[in-house]
Amino acid sequence: MNRKPILVFQTDFTYKEGAVSAMYGVVKTVDRDLEIFDGSHELPKFDIWSASYRLYQSMEFWPKGTIFVSVVDPGVGTGRRAAAARTTNGYTVVTPDNGSLTHTAAKIGIAEIREIDERVNRLDGTRGVSVFHGRDLFGYCAARLASGIITFEETGPAYSVDDIKRLPIIEPSMTGPAENREVRGIFEIDDPNFGNMWTNIPLAMFTEAGFSYGDTLRVIILHGGKVVFDENVLFAKSFGYAEKGKPVIYNNELMNIAMAVAEGNCSAAYGLGYGAAWEVVFTKS
Amino acid sequence: MNRKPILVFQTDFTYKEGAVSAMYGVVKTVDRDLEIFDGSHELPKFDIWSASYRLYQSMEFWPKGTIFVSVVDPGVGTGRRAAAARTTNGYTVVTPDNGSLTHTAAKIGIAEIREIDERVNRLDGTRGVSVFHGRDLFGYCAARLASGIITFEETGPAYSVDDIKRLPIIEPSMTGPAENREVRGIFEIDDPNFGNMWTNIPLAMFTEAGFSYGDTLRVIILHGGKVVFDENVLFAKSFGYAEKGKPVIYNNELMNIAMAVAEGNCSAAYGLGYGAAWEVVFTKS
Amino acid sequence: MNRKPILVFQTDFTYKEGAVSAMYGVVKTVDRDLEIFDGSHELPKFDIWSASYRLYQSMEFWPKGTIFVSVVDPGVGTGRRAAAARTTNGYTVVTPDNGSLTHTAAKIGIAEIREIDERVNRLDGTRGVSVFHGRDLFGYCAARLASGIITFEETGPAYSVDDIKRLPIIEPSMTGPAENREVRGIFEIDDPNFGNMWTNIPLAMFTEAGFSYGDTLRVIILHGGKVVFDENVLFAKSFGYAEKGKPVIYNNELMNIAMAVAEGNCSAAYGLGYGAAWEVVFTKS
Repeated sequence: MNRKPILVFQTDFTYKEGAVSAMYGVVKTVDRDLEIFDGSHELPKFDIWSASYRLYQSMEFWPKGTIFVSVVDPGVGTGRRAAAARTTNGYTVVTPDNGSLTHTAAKIGIAEIREIDERVNRLDGTRGVSVFHGRDLFGYCAARLASGIITFEETGPAYSVDDIKRLPIIEPSMTGPAENREVRGIFEIDDPNFGNMWTNIPLAMFTEAGFSYGDTLRVIILHGGKVVFDENVLFAKSFGYAEKGKPVIYNNELMNIAMAVAEGNCSAAYGLGYGAAWEVVFTKS
Repeated sequence: MNRKPILVFQTDFTYKEGAVSAMYGVVKTVDRDLEIFDGSHELPKFDIWSASYRLYQSMEFWPKGTIFVSVVDPGVGTGRRAAAARTTNGYTVVTPDNGSLTHTAAKIGIAEIREIDERVNRLDGTRGVSVFHGRDLFGYCAARLASGIITFEETGPAYSVDDIKRLPIIEPSMTGPAENREVRGIFEIDDPNFGNMWTNIPLAMFTEAGFSYGDTLRVIILHGGKVVFDENVLFAKSFGYAEKGKPVIYNNELMNIAMAVAEGNCSAAYGLGYGAAWEVVFTKS
Repeated sequence: MNRKPILVFQTDFTYKEGAVSAMYGVVKTVDRDLEIFDGSHELPKFDIWSASYRLYQSMEFWPKGTIFVSVVDPGVGTGRRAAAARTTNGYTVVTPDNGSLTHTAAKIGIAEIREIDERVNRLDGTRGVSVFHGRDLFGYCAARLASGIITFEETGPAYSVDDIKRLPIIEPSMTGPAENREVRGIFEIDDPNFGNMWTNIPLAMFTEAGFSYGDTLRVIILHGGKVVFDENVLFAKSFGYAEKGKPVIYNNELMNIAMAVAEGNCSAAYGLGYGAAWEVVFTKS
């Protein structure tokens, strides 16, 4: 009957060497009762945007109180703040404040943020090490917090949530007359395993635009303003409805519009990426 | 002293993004006491055959009562049944009924199968999502089952085990006179990490054929009826007995005959694959 | 309040098929209370040196009493001993005695070692299998030990710690006059994810040599005696202090000197490897 908060870790460390093991060992040394889960240790290296997005993607499916430790930290040991943040919906994130809180701040809300005080929340004997805050600072501090050894207030001094480092988020838009809407957004992130491309456009905007499952939509994709894809594509409830090898537009697990190739890899098939430079425009065909 | 069933998950999702995290979060939100293990999240994409084989490979090593959640599901959101099956030896599998139960049905036995009733066993607030049954249906339903919130009967209406979707399984054969047996089978699956090729031939058939450790066997491999390998190969207790870089026939962990290259990769070295098109014939050399 | 020892597994099996699942299932079948962690299942195939190094890298961060199961075992089923070792600092390692204990023996210390008695510590029904000691012998025996079913003495007969198989470890050296020290070592291991190269030179030797953070050092790398790199490189507290894409010398998480490329891959950028053939020489530039 373990009711201490769960710890969920996400990093770009992989399991190829001993770093995750050492980090988890520290947690269990702080408190044997703590439960640890892998969020992901295969985030793209140095990709703070992915770290931010994955927190948002999975956070609300975990029990309230869960503590997330997110360590994609190319600036480890330098000036960026080590932080602990409390969300408005009852979660905690322990992370470098380097942009990793972008989506949590924008889409969920951060109630309070504190800079981790290294003098009290650093693993003993590691003061000479500046390259593994996942083990020595973030994991250790999160474990102490989960264990109840320290309170949230004891992580360190508070600072303004307005000072949280945020990466730019681009909002989708709908234009044109009611009978001929144009919905425009970007590929905000991918599913790197299946090669599905996820836009920043909520299903609700498609519904408002009058696009329904079964419709064929004209999809124009621009990279740096240049058209790289212009085809009519089925809009379906699931990629399972498309013919194998064909592109398909669907409503993804976060209720946002995405594009896939049925039993294929959309990203690879069409050479697509994500970010502000990857615009996508939908109209009825 | 946790005696609720363990949950073992296998998918083709990988840990590269937040899907597994969200799925496990749902389980822990249903019941904090539940224990979750990774079977594998690196099954070959869309490869239902592998999903089926891996269930069979590992099932009986887990405690009786363990609940397996298997989600290789290219047809997610379409007509294939979402199912919960009880095996004859005391395990439960929650999975799309798309062929994933092939080996469990053939080699272990399924006592009862039910179609998951989405009206009661779907995660609240996800009714609009048709692409992530691992999170919204299979994981959620399995967690409720493990927790005791629902009984097996309450997963949904029963249907005939004869209606379970099965992929064709090919049986090995032994022919020829007692002093000169020919044993014939297929490469049924591989070990994708080490590149070992696993046949469908049980060690018992080799023993019956009079093949013993230390024998050199003639191995003919045919792909689509065409010979692609014809060599004399040592039959040993373990690949550790073969010279580094040499092929070797051995008895694998499921007591079936397999072929490896000592400290090498058999599949890559000889360009081998698995499935009905990959026949293999053994005789004494 | 589970106070049985934690089990930490490391292998070269990967999670691509059902081997890890079967191995962990055996542990939970022995005792449902046991806690299992992945050390790594992505060690380089057949690389006993890496297995040895990773044990040393992570061991002391785990609670005292933790039992490590290490299975990189190209000689499985042959003459190498299956062993259980007790370290001088209170940990246990269950492993083939094939060199995997090299760093534990050299850098931590082994107090006692025993050969696992297969007659009593092998999983029932697997006597015919010679290729999966991770499941049938090491994991099973470690689970029985953690559970308290057997004592350490009951793993099997003791043998001399002098008979432990050890791979050669090369020591670093410092030469030259006080005002112009030369520090010489090897790349002992890499970080295969980030491509960082870890030397066998402790920070303490750099300090003794008078090298300080902020210094620019001349770095000469030799492969098989031939110079493959000769550049002036910044020595900094963390790779975060170097310009993106530039090489940097830093103090790694084990307080040894390492080389990275900031937000890049040092190993790939300069074609570097590890082992006795990879010498590295540092002087003040």
